[in-house]
Amino acid sequence: MPGTSREVRLAVRPEGLPEPEHFAVVQVPMPVPGDGEVLVRNRFFHVFPALRTLIGGSVKGAPFPGLRPGDTLYGKAIGEVVSAPPDAGVRPGDLVQHWLGWREYAAVPAGRWSPLDGTLPDPAAHLGQAAIAYTALTRDARLRPGDTVFVSGGAGGIGSLAGQIARALGAGRVIGSTGSPDKAKRLVSELGYDAAVLRGTRPIADQLAEAAPDGIDVLVDNVGGEQLQAAIAAARPGARFAIVGTLAGQLSPDLAGTTAPVEIDTFQLIVKGIEMRGFGSSAGPAADPEWAGRFGGWLRSGEVTFPHVRVTGIENAPRALHEMIGGRHLGTVIVEL
Amino acid sequence: MPGTSREVRLAVRPEGLPEPEHFAVVQVPMPVPGDGEVLVRNRFFHVFPALRTLIGGSVKGAPFPGLRPGDTLYGKAIGEVVSAPPDAGVRPGDLVQHWLGWREYAAVPAGRWSPLDGTLPDPAAHLGQAAIAYTALTRDARLRPGDTVFVSGGAGGIGSLAGQIARALGAGRVIGSTGSPDKAKRLVSELGYDAAVLRGTRPIADQLAEAAPDGIDVLVDNVGGEQLQAAIAAARPGARFAIVGTLAGQLSPDLAGTTAPVEIDTFQLIVKGIEMRGFGSSAGPAADPEWAGRFGGWLRSGEVTFPHVRVTGIENAPRALHEMIGGRHLGTVIVEL
Repeated sequence: MPGTSREVRLAVRPEGLPEPEHFAVVQVPMPVPGDGEVLVRNRFFHVFPALRTLIGGSVKGAPFPGLRPGDTLYGKAIGEVVSAPPDAGVRPGDLVQHWLGWREYAAVPAGRWSPLDGTLPDPAAHLGQAAIAYTALTRDARLRPGDTVFVSGGAGGIGSLAGQIARALGAGRVIGSTGSPDKAKRLVSELGYDAAVLRGTRPIADQLAEAAPDGIDVLVDNVGGEQLQAAIAAARPGARFAIVGTLAGQLSPDLAGTTAPVEIDTFQLIVKGIEMRGFGSSAGPAADPEWAGRFGGWLRSGEVTFPHVRVTGIENAPRALHEMIGGRHLGTVIVEL
Repeated sequence: MPGTSREVRLAVRPEGLPEPEHFAVVQVPMPVPGDGEVLVRNRFFHVFPALRTLIGGSVKGAPFPGLRPGDTLYGKAIGEVVSAPPDAGVRPGDLVQHWLGWREYAAVPAGRWSPLDGTLPDPAAHLGQAAIAYTALTRDARLRPGDTVFVSGGAGGIGSLAGQIARALGAGRVIGSTGSPDKAKRLVSELGYDAAVLRGTRPIADQLAEAAPDGIDVLVDNVGGEQLQAAIAAARPGARFAIVGTLAGQLSPDLAGTTAPVEIDTFQLIVKGIEMRGFGSSAGPAADPEWAGRFGGWLRSGEVTFPHVRVTGIENAPRALHEMIGGRHLGTVIVEL
């Protein structure tokens, strides 16, 4: 075991979107596990869009603390146990998941890690956001067989799974939005979307009206803004919207990632009987055992894939974040150590 | 029985808010009931804010048809049966409710009327919108005992009942908004609100923060606009919003009553896990038997009152509509014939 570990810190708070030079990869002494802590050698961690928000500072009421210059970044990670207290229930070599990513080694307090149980065929798939996609579709949006589903940000970490899971749950028609012609093609050819709408060209509402001429029943919204407006315009009576992400805010240089303003028409909410749920209203451990079993089954049968990009080496993690925010990748972005 | 009946028609479409001169009270031949129709002498009809929208024209997807110049207005009415087919199940003198208000006599087709069963102690109370208030609170907002409730438009036909019903259902604290100091006082002194916030003075968000320092759990929104924004700002985690009306649009001279634009922040919906439901998403006959029984019980015990204003004579109905839209009245506005 080396005497040092590397980790990624926020060096300076970016004015606009984060660039690699806003981060520093620093060498630190190997963490010494305290009382009850498990020492973990990280194998993978994910690069998640909410980091843009966290880098913008703390957000009142948010489930995660904000990041200040000097702070080490964090995110979901999978690693091998190096050492553990005798009563921890894991042994050296076992795989665990925790939230102290963005570092090679982590001393993880008791209660802040959980063992991987092999429910998913690929350990890295635990870094995917299938739990969110599944919960948004089944709990918030209460997907029914035959529903027409619109996934905004359809190529992102959540969206690339939501589209496939909607299909596996019996959706009739699945439409995704994305920001590049290449990803639009891949939504249809690789991820099973029936149609893609392309941000930055013609109005999303016009494209969505063509892709879903009879309207939509369900929205999984990772973006907000114009895409949410288009979904309201296309909604059928009784449509159910899961509001999951605000990429429109997170990817905008003008916003700190902590707001996602959008003008909506509440008259339409009433006339159409639309229901909108912020994802936090249903998130909870209750859904967890169910999603993992079903996601694992779909992965094994090949009905659903885990779209992701692996970037190797912690020194490349800041670039991976920059590229992810720039919309360069399809699926979950994972750093492999 | 006279040979003629009077009814109120839209004379010209108003540019801004409706004034009495936009309507005509016309004499017409007594309606002759067709096959299966019941002839009803109306006793009361209500004056409802959505008329502003309907006068603006037809609304795609709306449950009611729009009104064109020359059309007779309509609205919920209570009347006495004058004549009925032998198999109709009602006899002359029985009270029925239907939607052909704004006229002295109406020939009501089969299936478009229902008998009053005495569940409510005052027949006129059937013109109140307790069914909407009750359904919004119990189904959309899923009120829990102890919840802090904000009713925007707290003195209106729906709001004046929603505040009282929220209390009867066990709400901990109930706050209402209104547009005049006099009505603000009456919200507290007559309708059991704990506090009132007053539109058009200081920002609603500031007033609501003072009236509900620990935030709100439930919104019954009859207004939209700034009031909805204030509710989002004040929402506690897991807050549930029933979006019932758009008075902000209906009472605005600049809008035709068919839109109610408001800028919201979807990031806050997620961070706080807020759920917003357009009322149409739950409206249905399922709730009906339940609301009537409970509302009748509350009226009889005096726990809830039916706040309303009675205007006498069909010739005064256009003025009653004008005054209602101008916010001059508290509660349901009823025309008595």
